[in-house]
Amino acid sequence: MRIAIVGAGALGLYYGALLQRSGEDVHFLLRRDFDVITKHGLKVFSINGDFSLPHVQGYRVAEEIGPADLVLVGLKTFANENFPGLIGPLVGAGTQILTLQNGLGNEERLAELFSGERIIGGVAFLCSNRGEQGEVHHLGAGRIVLGEYQRRDLERVDRLVEAFRRAGVDCQATDDLKRSRWEKLVWNIPFNGLCALLQQPVNMLLAQDACRKLVREIMLEVIAGANAQDLARPVAEGFADSMLEFTDNMGEYRPSMQIDREEGRQLEIAAIFRTPLAYARQQGVNMPRVEMLATLLEQATL
Amino acid sequence: MRIAIVGAGALGLYYGALLQRSGEDVHFLLRRDFDVITKHGLKVFSINGDFSLPHVQGYRVAEEIGPADLVLVGLKTFANENFPGLIGPLVGAGTQILTLQNGLGNEERLAELFSGERIIGGVAFLCSNRGEQGEVHHLGAGRIVLGEYQRRDLERVDRLVEAFRRAGVDCQATDDLKRSRWEKLVWNIPFNGLCALLQQPVNMLLAQDACRKLVREIMLEVIAGANAQDLARPVAEGFADSMLEFTDNMGEYRPSMQIDREEGRQLEIAAIFRTPLAYARQQGVNMPRVEMLATLLEQATL
Repeated sequence: MRIAIVGAGALGLYYGALLQRSGEDVHFLLRRDFDVITKHGLKVFSINGDFSLPHVQGYRVAEEIGPADLVLVGLKTFANENFPGLIGPLVGAGTQILTLQNGLGNEERLAELFSGERIIGGVAFLCSNRGEQGEVHHLGAGRIVLGEYQRRDLERVDRLVEAFRRAGVDCQATDDLKRSRWEKLVWNIPFNGLCALLQQPVNMLLAQDACRKLVREIMLEVIAGANAQDLARPVAEGFADSMLEFTDNMGEYRPSMQIDREEGRQLEIAAIFRTPLAYARQQGVNMPRVEMLATLLEQATL
Repeated sequence: MRIAIVGAGALGLYYGALLQRSGEDVHFLLRRDFDVITKHGLKVFSINGDFSLPHVQGYRVAEEIGPADLVLVGLKTFANENFPGLIGPLVGAGTQILTLQNGLGNEERLAELFSGERIIGGVAFLCSNRGEQGEVHHLGAGRIVLGEYQRRDLERVDRLVEAFRRAGVDCQATDDLKRSRWEKLVWNIPFNGLCALLQQPVNMLLAQDACRKLVREIMLEVIAGANAQDLARPVAEGFADSMLEFTDNMGEYRPSMQIDREEGRQLEIAAIFRTPLAYARQQGVNMPRVEMLATLLEQATL
């Protein structure tokens, strides 16, 4: 499979490297690491075992790659305005576009530009970051849940799941992508938001009764927002409690948005907060605490 | 009038100095500034004109002062647990106790200890801080609204209003103390809370549409909480808009709670947030954004 990686950050580099190692024909669109990676290849430091790819096909512009079978999108969502120039040249007759980006609205934007038939969405549970140039660090998890954005047959998704599994990725198909995206938000909105705002790891939030209660109230708002979205099956309120227990076992974990803030990077507030708020509001559901959290984050990072 | 000042911080020192200058017999309970003030007196630097009191009656313990006609309480509310030892020795048969403290719950606590008949509440709009030992700086405003906590006749309050006016204080009586306290919270809760949390002055909040909207939503929650409290007249929703316009004219103003946080002092979260939340909840009114703000402030200042 001819695969183009757009948004070769920690996520794109990691999954791209695994796919190349498993024999796929992977082409990376690079910026910061172009020189180092095209000369010296890519090093992956992973909890599942380190490995190196001495020869990596890297490019500066999408036109040099040309049409691909699969475009894997790992861009930060605030760069989505660059979809046309970055992805357009990669799209041929049978090209599939898989977005593993955070939050909501990415499939919709890609569908507007390149037609919904092509679009597959993936929810990635990955803890990774970039190190030196030409390096990527895989610190935990890595599971992906894949689903069609618009098409209803699952065969295409199953083939993609198989490709990820051959590459060593824990990968599953879902017949309700929207539900998977919202379920991830049930965790992401309170923990990414509050940890980034307060600059405290998850265990500090959960140790205080009032703050634990706030986390749960935010989760319930997101669940109400989710259940207004015409999902095949509703998200149960008990999902909030499962997520709290799950997080109790994470120790002093710092969500990616907290790290982004600590390191002065732009936060994905639109995709993770504002678009879910808009989708909920379209269905008549307000999420006042989520909205307050979004506003506070925007204000804190003016 | 024999007046004892308990809680001789920026507020207690300022009003106490004005009352002494106007001829009242004022006795200050002092801690930090005892040596300097009893030796060298008190200097007031005020936008209304500076003045000095070379001789000030200062004490380390309330027993040395003994019964007063009026006890003026300016303590930080988190020190209210010290009411018995600080105020008990000052209370005689006819003693009135005036609390000019922030937030809610102070009159109630004083009434429990010393009987509600004695208690007068005052809402102070004062911008002052302490400088060097033996100094107090009056930076703006200074108005006081006084009202009975329990008694219904206004004569006693009128006499007190006259005493403050003789001292040069803009002072008025109210027949609905509870309403005055809640009206002040309509401003204090959003601005003290958000400015302290985000460490931004009021004009930074109001310059952003989303944050201005949040301030207004918080104000409307407080107004709903107020109007559940059996007030003589309800607080109109338009009061929120008046407060926003009023604040637009304040420029780069930093509320006292923001300054307290910047300088590492304890915040009055119980009196300004948690007690109003409890009083609203007792009447069946939830204030979700106010509660979230309280929780975030507590969490941020763990």
